[in-house]
Amino acid sequence: MKKALLATTALMLSAGVAAADVNISGYGRTGIIYYENNDPAVEETQVISRLRMTLDASTETDAGVEFGGRIRLQWDQNQDTAAETNPGKLWISAQGLTVEIGNVENAMDSSSLLYETELGVFDRSVGLSDVAGSFFAYEDGPYDNVGRQGVGAIYSFGDVAVHFSMIDPDQTADSTATTEREYSLLGEYTWNDRLELSAAYTQNGAGLEDNDIFFIGARYAVLDNARIGLNYVNADDSLFDEEVGSSIGQTVALYGDYTLADGLTNIEAYVANNDGDWLGKETDNAFGIGVNYDLGGARLGASIQRDYEELVTADAGVRFEF
Amino acid sequence: MKKALLATTALMLSAGVAAADVNISGYGRTGIIYYENNDPAVEETQVISRLRMTLDASTETDAGVEFGGRIRLQWDQNQDTAAETNPGKLWISAQGLTVEIGNVENAMDSSSLLYETELGVFDRSVGLSDVAGSFFAYEDGPYDNVGRQGVGAIYSFGDVAVHFSMIDPDQTADSTATTEREYSLLGEYTWNDRLELSAAYTQNGAGLEDNDIFFIGARYAVLDNARIGLNYVNADDSLFDEEVGSSIGQTVALYGDYTLADGLTNIEAYVANNDGDWLGKETDNAFGIGVNYDLGGARLGASIQRDYEELVTADAGVRFEF
Amino acid sequence: MKKALLATTALMLSAGVAAADVNISGYGRTGIIYYENNDPAVEETQVISRLRMTLDASTETDAGVEFGGRIRLQWDQNQDTAAETNPGKLWISAQGLTVEIGNVENAMDSSSLLYETELGVFDRSVGLSDVAGSFFAYEDGPYDNVGRQGVGAIYSFGDVAVHFSMIDPDQTADSTATTEREYSLLGEYTWNDRLELSAAYTQNGAGLEDNDIFFIGARYAVLDNARIGLNYVNADDSLFDEEVGSSIGQTVALYGDYTLADGLTNIEAYVANNDGDWLGKETDNAFGIGVNYDLGGARLGASIQRDYEELVTADAGVRFEF
Repeated sequence: MKKALLATTALMLSAGVAAADVNISGYGRTGIIYYENNDPAVEETQVISRLRMTLDASTETDAGVEFGGRIRLQWDQNQDTAAETNPGKLWISAQGLTVEIGNVENAMDSSSLLYETELGVFDRSVGLSDVAGSFFAYEDGPYDNVGRQGVGAIYSFGDVAVHFSMIDPDQTADSTATTEREYSLLGEYTWNDRLELSAAYTQNGAGLEDNDIFFIGARYAVLDNARIGLNYVNADDSLFDEEVGSSIGQTVALYGDYTLADGLTNIEAYVANNDGDWLGKETDNAFGIGVNYDLGGARLGASIQRDYEELVTADAGVRFEF
Repeated sequence: MKKALLATTALMLSAGVAAADVNISGYGRTGIIYYENNDPAVEETQVISRLRMTLDASTETDAGVEFGGRIRLQWDQNQDTAAETNPGKLWISAQGLTVEIGNVENAMDSSSLLYETELGVFDRSVGLSDVAGSFFAYEDGPYDNVGRQGVGAIYSFGDVAVHFSMIDPDQTADSTATTEREYSLLGEYTWNDRLELSAAYTQNGAGLEDNDIFFIGARYAVLDNARIGLNYVNADDSLFDEEVGSSIGQTVALYGDYTLADGLTNIEAYVANNDGDWLGKETDNAFGIGVNYDLGGARLGASIQRDYEELVTADAGVRFEF
Repeated sequence: MKKALLATTALMLSAGVAAADVNISGYGRTGIIYYENNDPAVEETQVISRLRMTLDASTETDAGVEFGGRIRLQWDQNQDTAAETNPGKLWISAQGLTVEIGNVENAMDSSSLLYETELGVFDRSVGLSDVAGSFFAYEDGPYDNVGRQGVGAIYSFGDVAVHFSMIDPDQTADSTATTEREYSLLGEYTWNDRLELSAAYTQNGAGLEDNDIFFIGARYAVLDNARIGLNYVNADDSLFDEEVGSSIGQTVALYGDYTLADGLTNIEAYVANNDGDWLGKETDNAFGIGVNYDLGGARLGASIQRDYEELVTADAGVRFEF
């Protein structure tokens, strides 16, 4: 009783169909990641690659309302046996307001500053990104649960942007289930292209009751070619993956980047402090330094970092956009 | 011993390659569906979305014969954990005749009238589409059986179109298997853009022996902006899903639609009568009313229906094409 | 802690982004394959189709270095229940040298002559391609092992091309594992568009220690419209699939093709001799003849062959490119 696309409104031909468009964009990156470990059966140095192709479809009505949808194809070396599709996202946009439905981003996860301690072409930050707490993210691959359903709203006015998201782990089950809806709110402000502020709050992160996460960050362009920032994440309520009972804790990170006079070489670094007491932790401080060189349409990058287990990790590679 | 694409006929360079083309089209739809139920663990109101991207490739030879292929990516909320690919379909077209091979449509399923009782942006009809019998359809996702193989032929001449399909549930097995080949034949006639006739017969629907289904429908444009139709489906040989021994029965549906003077608002309704006696059935009559509003490239729609179990369902949403 | 695409180098806007491009190409083929067999439960004649869509993305930097990535969607009748994605491949190209990473081709598998005994639109050769030994190939579908990792290098200078590949069955495991890295080297030379030479050596084919394969082939255009070739494959170290202990052996194949005066019809044939002694083998000689007719953008083809089990196989079909 299924059926193909049918035109059920054949009489409704009067209104003109506005410009519809499908676009494929994405990036590829490849290189080497070294991660110190004590397991002789695990290679410390591996080639890691990603190829992402995002299929964006959209159409605009006569009244200027835009409708769109997104599906992504992505392959990650060491993670996917083949390129994976992900669940779709649909959106409607008008007058600065965008409403998203389906596989939406967590609002906090969309902060323009939260991941700015990340280094190199692999965008890794063992000091902050790895201890930012548990929350739902835009899914790269299949959902764990077909009933997962998200809604988001993004509104921009001038220098201010507000983003709200609600992700229900299973909309088919009634509200007495063990999982909760995750709510997240993000506010951002930019002043004169110099100062960036970003603050976010996530409630019931990843559908876990009382897993509330708070983030605030600020960055200032001290020179035309240099920025310095400070991020704070409170993930006291989030637990480390397999270690029930030990909180991830709070993290503060100081970071910055500097572009050399060639206008192509960017040096970036961070130092982070985490007050958690989870299994394997050896120190409260993690730090890293990285460099990126712009090739125009592609970039070379490298980084070296030390994590909270006092293990060193380094990477070098290339990334291109299309 | 596999290999990449190889040019095995390098000497054959004389003939010019005609215009080849790849096109991505599809639609997105999202909104809310309410379905009354008596199970306290199941939410009655859910957000339901679909995102469909159809990849069509084709090429035309110097002599005007067209060759093409289709693969689809589709994500359905509550049904797929990620966007799914489906089995491919190949086709060859010349002089009004199209031959299809692979994941083909059942001919009856392609009727231009069979699904015209469907309402709103979700194209649902609990009165007719849900009791149209069991037959193979163009597959949205993976086949149950890699050996499934279909062939179709479509011929149009003036106001008449004929469509034949044969779908073998498993072409690798010999003919003594428990499943049978499904055959379907559809004939359609249009007169003066006023009268539409459609009749179809399916034998061994869904590969089940003696599951024969007959459909006939007619629709007439009584005014420039109003149509009225009558559909009849005989699914006496089809059984309700888990209820062995109880036939789906015969269904008659009266339906129509009316476009308001704005040329944008279309109102549609149906009333259907089913004579089956399957588990859960409370009444012989189902009915529904819906409305669609054309935004130009997108449409808003809503419907309310009552099914044969006397349960009410309603939906409201938006659908856009690209 | 995952995240969407972030611009981590917002200060690096000086360099212009060069032309980025995404292209979808591929082919479809369909027809009938007959394969004689003695199992009454298996149909000897089946409809076999393939639809391949290759998504290629690339970008070129200001300095003329090209970066690209490839993902493929492919559906094979009787093999895939739906179109499959495969693992990605990334590449960097400059000055005639291309370096590939990810799902790379085995160098020998990329020989321009190894598969030139293949006939018809299905590119089948029971006499040579089926006894060319075991080695990794560019994967059509998911990897068996997420840790599989390949690197390739291709260099062309004038009439000479060299191709090297290394495929590690599992880069995450240490080197004492039971599987080995596969290495392959291919060299090719073309003289005056008349003579083609191709030689290749694969070590530890398919990751199996001491499974070394050697290939050499030559083809000469005796006339403007006729070519004759000789291929030799030594797969003494490769075993037949389920028959542990019996080597595939060595194979010599003589082959040629001739284009008729219409410039559209190409006739091709081969005769092959294999000295192996594996289960089911009845004769040392296999042979086949085929024909292709160019439609311009598509071709019709047919072939008939006899394999080493003295079974006859034949095919007829159509193939189009896009």
